[in-house]
Amino acid sequence: MTDTSLPCGDILSAMRQKNPLVQCITNDVAMNIAANVLLAAGASPAMVSAEEEAGEFAGLAGAVTINIGTLWAGGVAGMREAARAATAAGIPWVLDPVAHYATGFRRKAIAELIALNPTIVRGNASEIMALAGETARGQGVDSGDSARSAQAAATALAQRQHCIVAVTGDVDFVTDGARSIDIEGGSPVMPKVTAIGCALTCLVGACVAVAPGQPLEATVTALGLFAVCGEDVGRRAQGPGSFQPLFLDALHAIDSVQFVSNLRVKVL
Amino acid sequence: MTDTSLPCGDILSAMRQKNPLVQCITNDVAMNIAANVLLAAGASPAMVSAEEEAGEFAGLAGAVTINIGTLWAGGVAGMREAARAATAAGIPWVLDPVAHYATGFRRKAIAELIALNPTIVRGNASEIMALAGETARGQGVDSGDSARSAQAAATALAQRQHCIVAVTGDVDFVTDGARSIDIEGGSPVMPKVTAIGCALTCLVGACVAVAPGQPLEATVTALGLFAVCGEDVGRRAQGPGSFQPLFLDALHAIDSVQFVSNLRVKVL
Amino acid sequence: MTDTSLPCGDILSAMRQKNPLVQCITNDVAMNIAANVLLAAGASPAMVSAEEEAGEFAGLAGAVTINIGTLWAGGVAGMREAARAATAAGIPWVLDPVAHYATGFRRKAIAELIALNPTIVRGNASEIMALAGETARGQGVDSGDSARSAQAAATALAQRQHCIVAVTGDVDFVTDGARSIDIEGGSPVMPKVTAIGCALTCLVGACVAVAPGQPLEATVTALGLFAVCGEDVGRRAQGPGSFQPLFLDALHAIDSVQFVSNLRVKVL
Repeated sequence: MTDTSLPCGDILSAMRQKNPLVQCITNDVAMNIAANVLLAAGASPAMVSAEEEAGEFAGLAGAVTINIGTLWAGGVAGMREAARAATAAGIPWVLDPVAHYATGFRRKAIAELIALNPTIVRGNASEIMALAGETARGQGVDSGDSARSAQAAATALAQRQHCIVAVTGDVDFVTDGARSIDIEGGSPVMPKVTAIGCALTCLVGACVAVAPGQPLEATVTALGLFAVCGEDVGRRAQGPGSFQPLFLDALHAIDSVQFVSNLRVKVL
Repeated sequence: MTDTSLPCGDILSAMRQKNPLVQCITNDVAMNIAANVLLAAGASPAMVSAEEEAGEFAGLAGAVTINIGTLWAGGVAGMREAARAATAAGIPWVLDPVAHYATGFRRKAIAELIALNPTIVRGNASEIMALAGETARGQGVDSGDSARSAQAAATALAQRQHCIVAVTGDVDFVTDGARSIDIEGGSPVMPKVTAIGCALTCLVGACVAVAPGQPLEATVTALGLFAVCGEDVGRRAQGPGSFQPLFLDALHAIDSVQFVSNLRVKVL
Repeated sequence: MTDTSLPCGDILSAMRQKNPLVQCITNDVAMNIAANVLLAAGASPAMVSAEEEAGEFAGLAGAVTINIGTLWAGGVAGMREAARAATAAGIPWVLDPVAHYATGFRRKAIAELIALNPTIVRGNASEIMALAGETARGQGVDSGDSARSAQAAATALAQRQHCIVAVTGDVDFVTDGARSIDIEGGSPVMPKVTAIGCALTCLVGACVAVAPGQPLEATVTALGLFAVCGEDVGRRAQGPGSFQPLFLDALHAIDSVQFVSNLRVKVL
């Protein structure tokens, strides 16, 4: 089922070999699991977010990821500096618009950030639909819409923003506005593990850091790695608690051949 | 031993069915485990705490929980906004006064928060005794007093504040100032898992969100769920590290019938 | 191989008996695991960092630990207050200079903190070499140098600062500038678990809190406990995910006799 023209195995191998430095500006719930996901998968995370250094540090990083989950005023300033510095230096950056529709404070922050031209936007269906201007049914940070229902919105958003858009859910969807790809796999336990989507955003950063000219393929690689490892672990875990350590073990243990042979992506 | 007049099984079922949105303003140690506890048990956590949005978001939530564990000046402002908005909108809110007696900064913050009329206060024995004006022997964030010794203080505090007061420890105690309930269970491993009490405060919020007119019963349900699952897992875990994933699995797996049949509550 | 003149077993026993209160000012990635490490090992952690209370709280603590991992402007102010109060009260304090060489903001903060006379400095090889004025090859928060290559830098730094310096890596190295000690053990999985070094810094604080006149020996005890438990768990864990719960269990289960009999330290 996998389209073998996608270089997902090569991107995973390159990440392990190059151990890219990824500057993760993420929320306080996700900090620990996001860093552990990157270390397990083969990247080098650095949680550097203060306004005083976020821009300077971005110049050292292979990619920057920005997540507004636990937003505060000082945090927005650091995000702005990092996004500007990344764009100025040609470093890819990834935006995770957590619950951006929920309050005026978030709507203002996301408008400012998306204007700084993210390379990739990753969100759940409700977040992507709301970003595209559609009505969404999210509750707090949780999606109220299926990933399938957000495909048209994702495509429109990618075309408008000239960026990659990824919608994660029961079936993931990635598009650059012209080409679109479905990724199957994962587990129904995953939405019961907090901040696993936020950690995935950081892993997208790790993949695009080693494939900066292939943001679509890098995004599919990261989402595919979560889909393959999540499906495997979901069969073995006893619940959301035991899922997490097993999932980190799986991200660490899987090699490129196993990954590609279990990856189920479809070019639409 | 369980008083079957208490609707604890019904409240657990309602939480799973309604998946309430709970705004958790908690400390930086507790963020991840609190969100995971709520997801595993069946609620939808949102860690929204900034002054600019905490009040607005409270209007969307089924309950608000406020914990002063890692207090900072900007955090107090967000807590104040959320507590005021919840009270104004008739939304229940839960206060966790972590180590409120330790410094002048904390004493000032807790005086302000308790004046905003929490629906429920949950703390350890030292915290509740100090809130009631008694001398307590807490060390930092850990209780130096037994839960039993705090019963009179809890009752006096409940009467003075017209709220529910819960003291957690070897035997938990919940009171509205007139009715009082003991809850047995749990495990001596639990105090060795950081922030598990803070996560429980968030679960109290999830229960009262689906039973807003029954704050006493909702509090007993949340504490009872921790007591039942904690006792079960405490027997199987090899230590505080393996306790945590097993505990999340247990919170996710238990159904209302198993819960009620293992619950040991006593109306005093 | 162990030099039996070192009182490491006694310091571990004293920590379990006295349950010292350790004020941990650490980064947002490390908060949860650091608190869990201290609870499992036998200490009482308190994450108190705000400028308004950090100095006052230091007067209650047995030791203070300061880590600049997720630095922000308000955080520096709290660190300064805590370090000053600890030094003024004769309370030992431990400095963890995470990636201090990476940005101007960090370089300024670390210069200010090191001038406040830490009792102990713990870092990876790149951090210690850069603190001593040597050229280091760190990438973000990860060391690019071997622990062995940092021994001369550590000794020079200890002599200049009149403090204990600990370099952790494949073989740990501790020195007061005159006496030097190697510690063998650990596991290659440990650098794949985020913030485990930050948690170790907090455990150094817990050991020196019960042996304030023996900072060298206390540091060796903490590092030795991680080396012994890490080596044991590294053999059994399936990867970095399962390592963490097993490691906390091992820290909780080990007794002084087991610890000393598996400790491999060498006075150089």
